[in-house]
Amino acid sequence: MTNFRIILAYNGTAYHGWQRQNNALAVQQVLEEAILSLTGQTVTVNGCSRTDAGVHARRFCASFLIESTITCRGIVFGLNSKLPDDISVLECEKVPLDFHARYMCSGKEYEYIIHNSEIKNPFYKDTAYRSWFPIDEKKLDKAAQDFVGTHDFKAMCSTDCTKENTVRTIFSFHVRREGELVIFTVSGDGFLYNMVRIMVGTLIFINEGKIGETQIPDILASKDRTRGGKTVPPQGLYLNEVYYDKDKGSEQGE
Amino acid sequence: MTNFRIILAYNGTAYHGWQRQNNALAVQQVLEEAILSLTGQTVTVNGCSRTDAGVHARRFCASFLIESTITCRGIVFGLNSKLPDDISVLECEKVPLDFHARYMCSGKEYEYIIHNSEIKNPFYKDTAYRSWFPIDEKKLDKAAQDFVGTHDFKAMCSTDCTKENTVRTIFSFHVRREGELVIFTVSGDGFLYNMVRIMVGTLIFINEGKIGETQIPDILASKDRTRGGKTVPPQGLYLNEVYYDKDKGSEQGE
Repeated sequence: MTNFRIILAYNGTAYHGWQRQNNALAVQQVLEEAILSLTGQTVTVNGCSRTDAGVHARRFCASFLIESTITCRGIVFGLNSKLPDDISVLECEKVPLDFHARYMCSGKEYEYIIHNSEIKNPFYKDTAYRSWFPIDEKKLDKAAQDFVGTHDFKAMCSTDCTKENTVRTIFSFHVRREGELVIFTVSGDGFLYNMVRIMVGTLIFINEGKIGETQIPDILASKDRTRGGKTVPPQGLYLNEVYYDKDKGSEQGE
Repeated sequence: MTNFRIILAYNGTAYHGWQRQNNALAVQQVLEEAILSLTGQTVTVNGCSRTDAGVHARRFCASFLIESTITCRGIVFGLNSKLPDDISVLECEKVPLDFHARYMCSGKEYEYIIHNSEIKNPFYKDTAYRSWFPIDEKKLDKAAQDFVGTHDFKAMCSTDCTKENTVRTIFSFHVRREGELVIFTVSGDGFLYNMVRIMVGTLIFINEGKIGETQIPDILASKDRTRGGKTVPPQGLYLNEVYYDKDKGSEQGE
């Protein structure tokens, strides 16, 4: 039995997120079908995270146990030949049998991209959220520092959230501009349901003067979702990177 | 009667090119339907070029005559509200009644993007052509200079080409690398059917050693399409810019 850890990139436009569902196509299902087609084996792939419908991933981590002599290179090129063009296997390595992509994850980095323009750009249709109101990225970068640290993020969590423990640690949060794109990059030890999209939406409300620029600590303390900004749409969100503790890392290269 | 010149950007993935067709959806049809919906008038839009199915445009020029008091700003924002997200009106201005986007065009610039990697990138699925063979962009930039100038480009034209005069002038041709992307930029006074895609395909054959790096003048002189490289696929091709003689330019801004 071998435990393979793979790094995936996917354009989430066509998928109802990562997790296999009964009534809609998810990335997990497409990947498991590609593994079956390549190896003849039915496996369950463990993903590092559930992503929502329309959300993208640049380096999504997943793992699966399989009885096979296939090499890591065989996994990468074999699966890529089976997978549609909007899902790609970037890397593969063998890991200890007890590695689990979700439970052992120690942190993640997300990015949210806003196309800040009055005029739509057809090449950002599914890969950024367009907002015309001029964004002051320096002001938002400063305001975002109030999210950094260990806080109860209940106010930044969808009301559908069922987690009992809503305390999370944000390692860093930066807002920068690249031409017409405003890019929000946030890393932390874990994220609640819709948490990144609500934090970005709250910063957007600060930009538009609907929330004061020093109000984030009060909103977090209130634990009241209705005090935050709107949940910005999924197509601007990217899972950038997933972190694991070094001692739970790779067994060997190939 | 007012003659409006508009600059469009479109992602060509979902369209069978610019020109209206009986059995497939083209950008021209979608635009004419948006104008009808906005103004109540049925117009014929003249485009600067026929683009092929799957080819993109960053600044496509089109013009149409209309009996309306609508402003240029009204055209831009009104049409953008009617058009799907993969077509955008970037600019609009009033031009003399005799302006015609196709007949008066004095030159165009195209770009072709190759994603030069063994591993596919899901975000370039419809917007670049992937080729794994390592590209020596400096060598190709040098070889491409043999296309520059006035030549008979019959050897670089699809065999479907019906033009009697196959002499064209290439103003400039540059090949550069940006990370995993290799970008071919070519401008000229006019282009034959599939000419950019065949010139790029010929450079790719030079890169792979299938054609000698000094062979372009001989191939052009042969006027024989079979001597050139393959026609590279449409999804890497962008119409970047369209040029008009200054004296045929805008009547007035708004």
